[in-house]
Amino acid sequence: MIKYMILDVDGTLTDKNRLISTGAIDAMRAGIKNNLKISLISGNVIPVMFGLKTFLGINGAVFGENGGIVLQEDRIIPFFDKTQSFKFLNRMEKEVNIKPMFTNIWRETSAAFLLNGADPEYIMSEAIKDDLYIVNSKFTWHIMNKGQDKAYAVNYIKSEYKLMDSEIMVVGDSDNDNSMFELDVVKACPDNATEYIKSKSDFVSDKSYGLEIIDIMKYYNIL
Amino acid sequence: MIKYMILDVDGTLTDKNRLISTGAIDAMRAGIKNNLKISLISGNVIPVMFGLKTFLGINGAVFGENGGIVLQEDRIIPFFDKTQSFKFLNRMEKEVNIKPMFTNIWRETSAAFLLNGADPEYIMSEAIKDDLYIVNSKFTWHIMNKGQDKAYAVNYIKSEYKLMDSEIMVVGDSDNDNSMFELDVVKACPDNATEYIKSKSDFVSDKSYGLEIIDIMKYYNIL
Repeated sequence: MIKYMILDVDGTLTDKNRLISTGAIDAMRAGIKNNLKISLISGNVIPVMFGLKTFLGINGAVFGENGGIVLQEDRIIPFFDKTQSFKFLNRMEKEVNIKPMFTNIWRETSAAFLLNGADPEYIMSEAIKDDLYIVNSKFTWHIMNKGQDKAYAVNYIKSEYKLMDSEIMVVGDSDNDNSMFELDVVKACPDNATEYIKSKSDFVSDKSYGLEIIDIMKYYNIL
Repeated sequence: MIKYMILDVDGTLTDKNRLISTGAIDAMRAGIKNNLKISLISGNVIPVMFGLKTFLGINGAVFGENGGIVLQEDRIIPFFDKTQSFKFLNRMEKEVNIKPMFTNIWRETSAAFLLNGADPEYIMSEAIKDDLYIVNSKFTWHIMNKGQDKAYAVNYIKSEYKLMDSEIMVVGDSDNDNSMFELDVVKACPDNATEYIKSKSDFVSDKSYGLEIIDIMKYYNIL
């Protein structure tokens, strides 16, 4: 039985323009009323995740920076350090045409940028040399520490709440969700997910951009 | 004709537990489709306001710290300085039993705290001596600079977009909205507003906690 749902935000609870689906909000609130625990996990910064937790009424921990940092009961815990990531960002800014995200002022474990015509392949191969890696969350490119990914966050929840894999469900749609979809937990996705995510999913909804949440909950008898 | 709506968040778009009303989200999005400009203004920190702008799809500037700071087209502009406010917070922490908000790490123009049994009257009277003032936003107490209030933000919008008073509507419900309700703009409020806010309003909805938004828009022919 699913006790804990861990949901990606962009493209999973929102549409392409990042507008959050009111249907997804209603579904999450109904699940919470039924004693389901919900966590959100995103590439976004932790104060934005704090805002989502507050205003949507999320009852579990929320993770920012693709799993690098958590807000758990008013306590912020960064799992990684931002030093290497920002050093690499500064170097790349001089070498290629990228634009640092203005949200970097609130990042604690990674740096983010927009490709301004720069070649992502070059940046990716240079990052590996510094023990970093690059992940694209659709809206933004992120410079991450090795081991810093959403699977890290799912394992954190699993250990904190002493859950079995079969009690955890993850929902996501795109490349920065891949690591979660390689775990042995229950996996579901919207119709707008990538082919890779779909191939790894136990259930693929035919709904998209937030409307899949209620569909997935019904399929797994959570609602 | 109303061209620009400036909305408080807590208690105006949300319920008592700060859960945002999906009805308010739908109403704001419908207004925006009809070419209405919307700004949000709250005691919250600017990255939280950035998150609300992004995920709700707000098309105007968003203000944090009760009007002390704005996010306008990816540019953050603080109108005040936080030095005096934090100095006062540190002094009060030693003198009385208050609890600084963990969100203070993201504040740029003011400091916030929870009353932990401390006497608000004493804190208020001490603040005035330092040319500061204290405002209560229901969930939090804020140490503000003189002149830093929501009316300041409304006047900023008025001047930036060259609007007439009759083209601006403000909606709010509680004490930290008072300054906006002393302006000559159009004023509306939910049924859960304070008696003072109601007495200053041009229209008082009989709906509460977010459901008044569509009601107000219909009354003023915005929808």
